[in-house]
Amino acid sequence: MFQLTRSPRLRSTPFSEAVEAAGVKAYTVYNHMLLPTVFQSMEEDYRHLKQAVQVWDVSVQRQVELRGPDSGRLMQMLTPRDLTSMHPGQCYYVPIVDETGGMLNDPVAVKLAEDRWWVSLADSDLLYWIKGIAYGYRLDVLVNEPDVSPLAVQGPRSNDLMAAVFGDVIRDLRFFRFGIFEFAKRPIVIARSGFSKQTGFEIYLEDSAIAMELWNALFEAGKDMDVRAGCPNGIERVEAGLLSYGNDMTSRNTPHECGLGKFCDTRSAIGCIGRDALLRVAKEGPVQQIRPVEIAGDPIPPLEAYWPVMAGKKQVGRISSAAWSPDFQTNVSIGMIRMTHWDAGTELTVKTPKGERQAVVKEKFWI
Amino acid sequence: MFQLTRSPRLRSTPFSEAVEAAGVKAYTVYNHMLLPTVFQSMEEDYRHLKQAVQVWDVSVQRQVELRGPDSGRLMQMLTPRDLTSMHPGQCYYVPIVDETGGMLNDPVAVKLAEDRWWVSLADSDLLYWIKGIAYGYRLDVLVNEPDVSPLAVQGPRSNDLMAAVFGDVIRDLRFFRFGIFEFAKRPIVIARSGFSKQTGFEIYLEDSAIAMELWNALFEAGKDMDVRAGCPNGIERVEAGLLSYGNDMTSRNTPHECGLGKFCDTRSAIGCIGRDALLRVAKEGPVQQIRPVEIAGDPIPPLEAYWPVMAGKKQVGRISSAAWSPDFQTNVSIGMIRMTHWDAGTELTVKTPKGERQAVVKEKFWI
Repeated sequence: MFQLTRSPRLRSTPFSEAVEAAGVKAYTVYNHMLLPTVFQSMEEDYRHLKQAVQVWDVSVQRQVELRGPDSGRLMQMLTPRDLTSMHPGQCYYVPIVDETGGMLNDPVAVKLAEDRWWVSLADSDLLYWIKGIAYGYRLDVLVNEPDVSPLAVQGPRSNDLMAAVFGDVIRDLRFFRFGIFEFAKRPIVIARSGFSKQTGFEIYLEDSAIAMELWNALFEAGKDMDVRAGCPNGIERVEAGLLSYGNDMTSRNTPHECGLGKFCDTRSAIGCIGRDALLRVAKEGPVQQIRPVEIAGDPIPPLEAYWPVMAGKKQVGRISSAAWSPDFQTNVSIGMIRMTHWDAGTELTVKTPKGERQAVVKEKFWI
Repeated sequence: MFQLTRSPRLRSTPFSEAVEAAGVKAYTVYNHMLLPTVFQSMEEDYRHLKQAVQVWDVSVQRQVELRGPDSGRLMQMLTPRDLTSMHPGQCYYVPIVDETGGMLNDPVAVKLAEDRWWVSLADSDLLYWIKGIAYGYRLDVLVNEPDVSPLAVQGPRSNDLMAAVFGDVIRDLRFFRFGIFEFAKRPIVIARSGFSKQTGFEIYLEDSAIAMELWNALFEAGKDMDVRAGCPNGIERVEAGLLSYGNDMTSRNTPHECGLGKFCDTRSAIGCIGRDALLRVAKEGPVQQIRPVEIAGDPIPPLEAYWPVMAGKKQVGRISSAAWSPDFQTNVSIGMIRMTHWDAGTELTVKTPKGERQAVVKEKFWI
């Protein structure tokens, strides 16, 4: 582990003060902003996430706002997913690709109104791509980064905690839907979503000035629910097969390689950037794809760079995320594996910094 | 200081192994990649940089390559600086702005040929902007990120070290010019440039496979010159007034606010994005601008977030970079100051995390 040198370029969030008071131990940098990675320990945070409820500062999920008459047209140009039947109040996971079908980001699109959208980003300056396309096509749309900082509430007790603060009606919110709730006399967008497989919500805070008030309200209401500060957990998300852009997939990969072919409606009549390339990919199928890979033996060291996956002396893939799973008592990992070796049950070798390990391609992720 | 959690998303560089062997103590993240910030200590690194010669892993200065018949046209669309008289072999510092004149990056453009350019980036995914514009305008150009990892050689003895490896002819290279030199039987682009005010060079390594060979050749040739691994230094660059994108300027700022109006040739007949907005700015002048600010008293703590600059109870600016300067025996800093208070000699107050300090606007940076 190395120290992180801080500077204004690595932006703090409206919740940073609370996160530090809660004892954050390490950060990563995501969208030029600080994202907590550990509070107690990776394993302690994991156990607590699966049993109770956590509040996560995920302000790093920066929003791009599209506003104006052409915003719907622009949104459909950006993604191969068919948005024609999407209504205001819905969230869609939308792969965004360039003209060659390479993934630029895998955000969640939040349709606020016919002429107003948020794109909730993974780690890349997608704002630049969207602004470039809007400018190049002379679209009648305003594109910018609003002052919106998402706060996630995740874990099996998240329903109780959210109901205590926002009222019981929030229990009825369906998955990947959002509603407008009230906090501090202001309307606030809350979606049932989040980067864990536990139940949870994401609160799209639109005014930094009330950030601490919101944080404190959640901790006050949750004091009998063992609420704690948390963050996306490197064990839980791998068990669940939740992909991380920049780690498990990059601009070199197509959605099909990432198992996201189901979000590519390139055969319908939508006009999106990259359609021609993705039609070709859909026809031929990808030559490599994301797979769950179980790595044998004792707990593996932290994965800090890709680990090669070998079949004999030939590299047939790479591991991009991995962790020891206390619940499954094995090493869980996410691999990008060549089609020659991606069938479930295929035995492979993984080169870790501490030597080679036996591994096997699994049928499904662990949860 | 906090720990940095590493993952493949924070890319290593072809030199990371050497950088770690050289005892790097801390990193920042820049263009999704690791950038060293401290080896011995900030002050020790500073003294050595000013006396000897250092090798810096600045692979984070990712390149965007423009290739094809429209690459020159695209390059001129991207920047308000007039490129009409720029020849292959030249490097230009080029502010890049959006349609409103907000800075998206402040890279160096390297003109390799009439139809081939590199854009050597500061910290933002400018690739996405350039690709978006090229796609929107249907330009005949290929835009991508090539496998190029710059290695800087900086310090007063950099001429001697570079001559020892690449031959005496490199001494004749003029500032912001590049030449093609040979290393390991391969052509290699080397420019006289770098992010320090000491003399120096940047080697644009085009093949990661020979990275360690290059690193080792420099250290072997420099063993009698006290060559050391280094990195852009947070004291030296502030003394010299070298601005850091993301710290001292962001997309909210125009080039004029950053003192870069001289690079905006909006009155000539070039067609660039943002020209209309910048003509307006040029006419009225900016309402705030970068200034050197001297902060009184003992050495200040590290600046991790903007420090407000006050005139009485009114905020009139912010400090974005600051350090104690051993050579000038004062605290040097870079401020963005409102026009009402930007005249040299104006006395102000700076709010640091350890209390208020007296400060004064200077006429010039310290070196």
